[in-house]
Amino acid sequence: MSDTTFGFLTEENVPLFTDLYELRMMQASFNQDHNPKATFSLFTRDLPPNRGYMIAAGLEQAIHYIENLSFGARTLEFLTEQGFDEGFLEQLATFEFTGDVRALPEGTPVFANEPLLEVTAPILQAQLLETALINQVGYQSLIATKASRMRDVIDRRGDGQRLVDFGSRRSHGTDAGIKAARAAYVGGFDATSNVAAGEAFGVPVAGTMAHSWVQSFDRERDSFEAFVDEYGSESVLLIDTYDTVAGAELAKDVAEEADVSLDGVRLDSGDLAALSKEVDEVLPDVDEYISSGIDEYAIAEFFDRDGVGDGFGPGTALVTSTDAPKVEGVYKLVAVERDGEMQPTMKLSPGKVTYPGAKSVRRTESDGEYTGDVLGLRDEDLPGTEQLVTIIEDGECVYDVPDLETIRERADEKRRKLPERHRRIEDPEPYDVQISDGLQRKTDDLQATLESRVEASGGDEP
Amino acid sequence: MSDTTFGFLTEENVPLFTDLYELRMMQASFNQDHNPKATFSLFTRDLPPNRGYMIAAGLEQAIHYIENLSFGARTLEFLTEQGFDEGFLEQLATFEFTGDVRALPEGTPVFANEPLLEVTAPILQAQLLETALINQVGYQSLIATKASRMRDVIDRRGDGQRLVDFGSRRSHGTDAGIKAARAAYVGGFDATSNVAAGEAFGVPVAGTMAHSWVQSFDRERDSFEAFVDEYGSESVLLIDTYDTVAGAELAKDVAEEADVSLDGVRLDSGDLAALSKEVDEVLPDVDEYISSGIDEYAIAEFFDRDGVGDGFGPGTALVTSTDAPKVEGVYKLVAVERDGEMQPTMKLSPGKVTYPGAKSVRRTESDGEYTGDVLGLRDEDLPGTEQLVTIIEDGECVYDVPDLETIRERADEKRRKLPERHRRIEDPEPYDVQISDGLQRKTDDLQATLESRVEASGGDEP
Repeated sequence: MSDTTFGFLTEENVPLFTDLYELRMMQASFNQDHNPKATFSLFTRDLPPNRGYMIAAGLEQAIHYIENLSFGARTLEFLTEQGFDEGFLEQLATFEFTGDVRALPEGTPVFANEPLLEVTAPILQAQLLETALINQVGYQSLIATKASRMRDVIDRRGDGQRLVDFGSRRSHGTDAGIKAARAAYVGGFDATSNVAAGEAFGVPVAGTMAHSWVQSFDRERDSFEAFVDEYGSESVLLIDTYDTVAGAELAKDVAEEADVSLDGVRLDSGDLAALSKEVDEVLPDVDEYISSGIDEYAIAEFFDRDGVGDGFGPGTALVTSTDAPKVEGVYKLVAVERDGEMQPTMKLSPGKVTYPGAKSVRRTESDGEYTGDVLGLRDEDLPGTEQLVTIIEDGECVYDVPDLETIRERADEKRRKLPERHRRIEDPEPYDVQISDGLQRKTDDLQATLESRVEASGGDEP
Repeated sequence: MSDTTFGFLTEENVPLFTDLYELRMMQASFNQDHNPKATFSLFTRDLPPNRGYMIAAGLEQAIHYIENLSFGARTLEFLTEQGFDEGFLEQLATFEFTGDVRALPEGTPVFANEPLLEVTAPILQAQLLETALINQVGYQSLIATKASRMRDVIDRRGDGQRLVDFGSRRSHGTDAGIKAARAAYVGGFDATSNVAAGEAFGVPVAGTMAHSWVQSFDRERDSFEAFVDEYGSESVLLIDTYDTVAGAELAKDVAEEADVSLDGVRLDSGDLAALSKEVDEVLPDVDEYISSGIDEYAIAEFFDRDGVGDGFGPGTALVTSTDAPKVEGVYKLVAVERDGEMQPTMKLSPGKVTYPGAKSVRRTESDGEYTGDVLGLRDEDLPGTEQLVTIIEDGECVYDVPDLETIRERADEKRRKLPERHRRIEDPEPYDVQISDGLQRKTDDLQATLESRVEASGGDEP
């Protein structure tokens, strides 16, 4: 068992978070003296179901990973046990990323086929990053998107309700719990219950009480009195342990007796919209926090039914993105140096296209609304504003990583620039991403060349 | 940003992986001198969709968490910043778990309402564990179950095909990637691509090559030759970059010229069942590894269509359990000490029951097959074999944690004892879990008492 209960990865073994094949390819590159400069593009072929956009997130952690990647004694020892060559491991011991990275800043809306990140470096270096970069950027983007959808429903239909992440217990492992809190904050949440995320990223931390608190006392009244005695007007009382409306009456009574105005009450079961209205009649001036099964669809239904709530606590549905729990990020070789020049490259796949070459993502807007993107070649002359930003140049980070508040504000501002039809939580209209003439031509030409090579060889090789 | 790229949790701050409300309740318990002995039960109310059983996993990490939980300087400093009292923090500084834990050993099939784990301790201690324990046991059980379903399809319909976890890039964060590899191994996988999981748990590590390796050479032939030159008969060649059957011909040719018998070839796109048969005609003696979109449903369909494969590499669908990405683990107060005796307790919820009291899970079998469980009270006289095992007693671990191989064998053996109708991957028949007479009586009595108290108070408190 690892020394650190959950933190299986520490500075000492971070490079081991990779697929074995990355290291096997690296070793072959090194021993076979095959180390051309290469460009890899990290993107997703399709948006998850019901998503009209995604919000890019996780770049800060991706940068930190690249900048700090080095192979120390513990890592090298394990790789020796796994049968890697001494010569290759000596090379690894001096590993340092010397290439270039371009990326979409966190908080930027992103669409299918658009690179979230592009890495250009000797292939021996660039290849190694695949597993960790997809993992890092994919999950946070998934959750920032989920969070953004909830914030968007509230912006359009609600009254500025607070969103607090309650998902840590149900996240896929602990790293996800902490990153979900960060990504949800980027997407428009206000706080998290996860204390570790407070420490790691400064996300505001919030919390109320559990049913066990109430049950552990002889009477519900005793439990409320003890909590109010402890936290006074900071108290949020959970009122649904035995009977929600009776709990509201009791909360009112206890608060009055203690001469305290409660911070709020929480409803966690039953018909939340209906109960929230009854509770509002009892406690019209106390905030109501709504939890249990909350996601963008539940929030919309809550508004449909005129529920009364001042905040929502989404949990499982947020941190697992239950309705669409995966984003299939890929990291594809799009260009490789041959005869001193970067040549576009692609895999041939029946029915799906991977666009070759290093990319440019241009976004146009009119009257404060985004009107469409052009996905083109990096060196092409294109309309619109370039979205990809230089992050690392010759191994040096040249990007000023914004603080989390700035990222969150940017995400909010940019989401609002998307026409509403792309933000619908069901059946959103696809946003227009055009393939530039240059990129389409390059794609068609390369595809034809590769297919003709397969054919010319009698079908036995390209 | 944390010091350790991914390992936001280290020995120094592990206790912060919790919901703020746990600590707020602890502080109130401490200051209000309310610290009765309590029993919490960790279970799930329903199995995820299409699951006829789950496989318990993650106990080893749960034990390690409990045994090593302590609040050091870094943690206390952060909690001071969050406004906790000095007196309470002094108490935390000496925190040590002194209670009891019972649990289902890893690899045990488990059903709805059956405790995976029960904690009995002063409530101040027991409450704190909630978030981390649900997280720890929930995710690994989810993935061990997903893996077990794939292994089961192969056992029933296949030919001992190997299962290798390729999911790390798509897992929800890095902790999930590493734990998925462990849990999948428990569930019947043979290896993982995740190198860190090899180091952390000794899971065998495996890997082939990526399309980028092939594309980075002028000709596919050159890429195969270089790889075979490097890895000889250990080579697994990825043959679908340009044309799968042509790739198979080429692999055959390169292997013959190098006088090497390949370890295998991998197919990662297209109509996998159809292509695998064509490839088998070209390379009848070479193992075929099948990846891309693999899960239990895809494996079953592959067999339906008489695909030829020697191994499968599930990725995203495994590590996110895509068809059912959550297990809603709960940690409920089921008993609390009053007047020197442990009294059962429950929440009242319209339409769903939480069974009160510390539990017993008895399993009966006949002719080597499980015939049903009885969920009863811990001190009840019940038929069948007790499944819950004492893990920690008075704070001391009295359980001999088995090695991973033993857990894996146990999971395999126990899964086979489940009648096939409960193992179907769609619409499995529910396994029979009876509620004992004693537990049913206690539940009904307590429910009636609580409801009458709500009523007697005029609906304003129980």
